[in-house]
Amino acid sequence: MDAYRQIVLASRPTGTPNLGNFRLEAGPMPVPAGGQLLLLTKYLSLDPYMRGRMNDAKSYAMPVELGHVMEGEVVAEILESTHPRYRQGELVLGKIGWRTHAAVAAEDVRRIETGGNSSTTALGVLGMPGFTAYSGMKVIGRPKVGETVVVAAASGPVGSLVGQLARIAGARAVGIAGGAEKCAYVRGELRFDAAIDHRAGSLSRALAAVCPDGIDVYFENVGGPIWDAALPLLNRYARVPVCGLIAHYNDARPADGSRVAETMLTVLRRSVLIQGFINTEFAADHFDNFLKELSPRIQSGDIRYREDITDGLEAAPGAFIDMLAGRNFGKVLVRVS
Amino acid sequence: MDAYRQIVLASRPTGTPNLGNFRLEAGPMPVPAGGQLLLLTKYLSLDPYMRGRMNDAKSYAMPVELGHVMEGEVVAEILESTHPRYRQGELVLGKIGWRTHAAVAAEDVRRIETGGNSSTTALGVLGMPGFTAYSGMKVIGRPKVGETVVVAAASGPVGSLVGQLARIAGARAVGIAGGAEKCAYVRGELRFDAAIDHRAGSLSRALAAVCPDGIDVYFENVGGPIWDAALPLLNRYARVPVCGLIAHYNDARPADGSRVAETMLTVLRRSVLIQGFINTEFAADHFDNFLKELSPRIQSGDIRYREDITDGLEAAPGAFIDMLAGRNFGKVLVRVS
Repeated sequence: MDAYRQIVLASRPTGTPNLGNFRLEAGPMPVPAGGQLLLLTKYLSLDPYMRGRMNDAKSYAMPVELGHVMEGEVVAEILESTHPRYRQGELVLGKIGWRTHAAVAAEDVRRIETGGNSSTTALGVLGMPGFTAYSGMKVIGRPKVGETVVVAAASGPVGSLVGQLARIAGARAVGIAGGAEKCAYVRGELRFDAAIDHRAGSLSRALAAVCPDGIDVYFENVGGPIWDAALPLLNRYARVPVCGLIAHYNDARPADGSRVAETMLTVLRRSVLIQGFINTEFAADHFDNFLKELSPRIQSGDIRYREDITDGLEAAPGAFIDMLAGRNFGKVLVRVS
Repeated sequence: MDAYRQIVLASRPTGTPNLGNFRLEAGPMPVPAGGQLLLLTKYLSLDPYMRGRMNDAKSYAMPVELGHVMEGEVVAEILESTHPRYRQGELVLGKIGWRTHAAVAAEDVRRIETGGNSSTTALGVLGMPGFTAYSGMKVIGRPKVGETVVVAAASGPVGSLVGQLARIAGARAVGIAGGAEKCAYVRGELRFDAAIDHRAGSLSRALAAVCPDGIDVYFENVGGPIWDAALPLLNRYARVPVCGLIAHYNDARPADGSRVAETMLTVLRRSVLIQGFINTEFAADHFDNFLKELSPRIQSGDIRYREDITDGLEAAPGAFIDMLAGRNFGKVLVRVS
C-alpha cells in the first residue's frame, strides 16, 4: 500500500488492441491536498467507448495521450478525507481512470445512490450504461404498446436494459447475442420475447423470422452486420437511437464516404439527427401556417422563386428526363393548355 | 378538343429513364358523372419523386402500373361542373396525372389558395415542393441564428426555399447548384450567403471553404457525392432532414448493406429517424427520474442485470480486449481491491 499502480496507454492500436498497447506502472502514493480525498479503487468499469479514446482522432472527447492513464470510472472507498462533506470509509463514484489510488478534489466525485442495490450497479444498470439505455429509449426510441424493439449485445449492460424497458412499455423485445448461453439468459432471465444467436446461421433471416411485424425501434450499439440485418426490417416511422458502434471501433480502413460506417460513426460521434420525411406527414400541423407565412413574403419579393416551363404534354417525358439530370433551372412545369 | 391525351408508363426503366419508357395515348373525352367535374389541365408539375413510381418497388407509395397514366399534380380549369360548390372557369389543384383532361369527383380537387400569387405557385413554392422545404426546416432542421444551413439543388423549388427560410431564421445559407448561371441566381436573386458549383473542381474542398464553422443543418435532397462532402463537416447536434435522394433514384446496383445509399434510401422511404446521442446530453433532464424509476425495479427483481467481474488491475487490458471481442457476459468490471 505504499505505491499506487495504474495502466497507461503505451501505444495506439491499429485495428484490434493488444496487450502491448497498455503498460502497468507504479508510483509513490498520492497525498491529498486541502479539500481533496484519497481514493482506493474498489471496482473499475470497462466500457466500449474507451476504444475510441485510444485513437488519435476526434470522437466524443479528447483521446488519451500516450503514456497517460487510461480513462475510466470507478467505485472507490475514501481512505482519507480533508473535505468536511466526506468521511473515511464512504463509497464514491469518480472518473479517476485505470488506477488503484488517486487524490482528487471532492467536486470530482459523487456519492453512490443505488437505492439499496449493490454499489457496483452505479457503474452498470444504475450508472452510465443503464442511463444510456434509459435516456435513449425515453428521448429517441419512445417504444409504444405492441411495437417491436430490437437491440444487440442484449446480455450486456446497455442492451439488457433496453429490452427490459421495452417490455415495461408493452413492446416486444428482441435481443441479439453471441452464443446459446447468452441467448438463454436473454430469454429466460431478462424475459425478452425472442433472442437470436448471431453466430448461428443467417442473422438476416433469423431476425426477419422473429420480427414478423417489422422493427419499430432499433437501438444501435453495434453496427456492421447487425445494422445490415435490421435495416430492411425497419417500419415506417422507425426510430434508431445510436449510442455505440462496437463493430466499427477497430476499423482501420481509410474513410470512404460511400460506406455506411462513416455515416453512422459521424451520427454517433457528433450526436447527429437524420430524419426522413414526406411533406404530407406534417401537413395537418403545419400546412395552414405555411400558406399564411409564405404567401405575403412571396408577394413582397422577400421570397423568390423560378419556374422552368415546357410547352405541350407530349414534351413532358423529355422535360422529366432533363430534370433528373439537373438540366432544369427552377421548378419544372409543363404548360398543357 | 374531342379527345383527351395522356402519357402512360410504357416500360420500367433500368437506371436512367429514356423516352421509350413513356407512351402518348389519346382517347374519347371523359364525361363527368353526377357530382364530378370535367377538368382541363393548364399546368402539370414534374417532380423527382415520380422516378420512384416508375420502379416496381416499395417506396413511399404504390408504383404506377404498366400501361397506366403517369402520376402527377396539375393546375386545372373546370370545363364543366355538376357539383354545386364549383363552377365552370374556376382553377383547382388535382392529382390527375400526366393528362390533358379528366373527370374527377369534387372531393379530389382543392381550390387554389396562393394569396394573390400566380396559380402555378400552387405546384411549386406554395405547393408540395415549398411545403417540403418549410416543414422539413420547421420540424427537423430548426435553424438558429448564426448557424450554417446547406442545401443542394439550390436553384430548384425545394432548395431555393430552404435557403431563403434559413436566411429569414438568421442562419447562413449555403447552396450547391450545377453551373455558374444557377450559382449566380442562388447568390444574387435568392440571396444565399454562398453558392458552390458542383461541376467546378472538388466539391468537398469548396464546401469546407464556405463552411468555416461547419454545418448545422444539411437539408438532404440529393445524396451521393453531396452527402459525402457534407458528412465530414457536420457539427455536433447537426440535423439532417432527408426529403429526397435524386442521385440514387436511377441506381440499378443491387442492394448492398455496406453502402450508405441503402441506409439513406430506407431513411427516406420509411421516414426513419436516426439520432446519435451521448447519455450525458440527456442527464440534466432525465437522470433523476432514471434513478427513481429503476432503483426499486432492480430491488424487486423486475429489472435484472449481470456482472462479469475480473480480479486485479493488471488484468484490465485483457478484460477490455475480451469485451471488444464480445467474450464478456454482462457488465465488465475489474475488482481492483
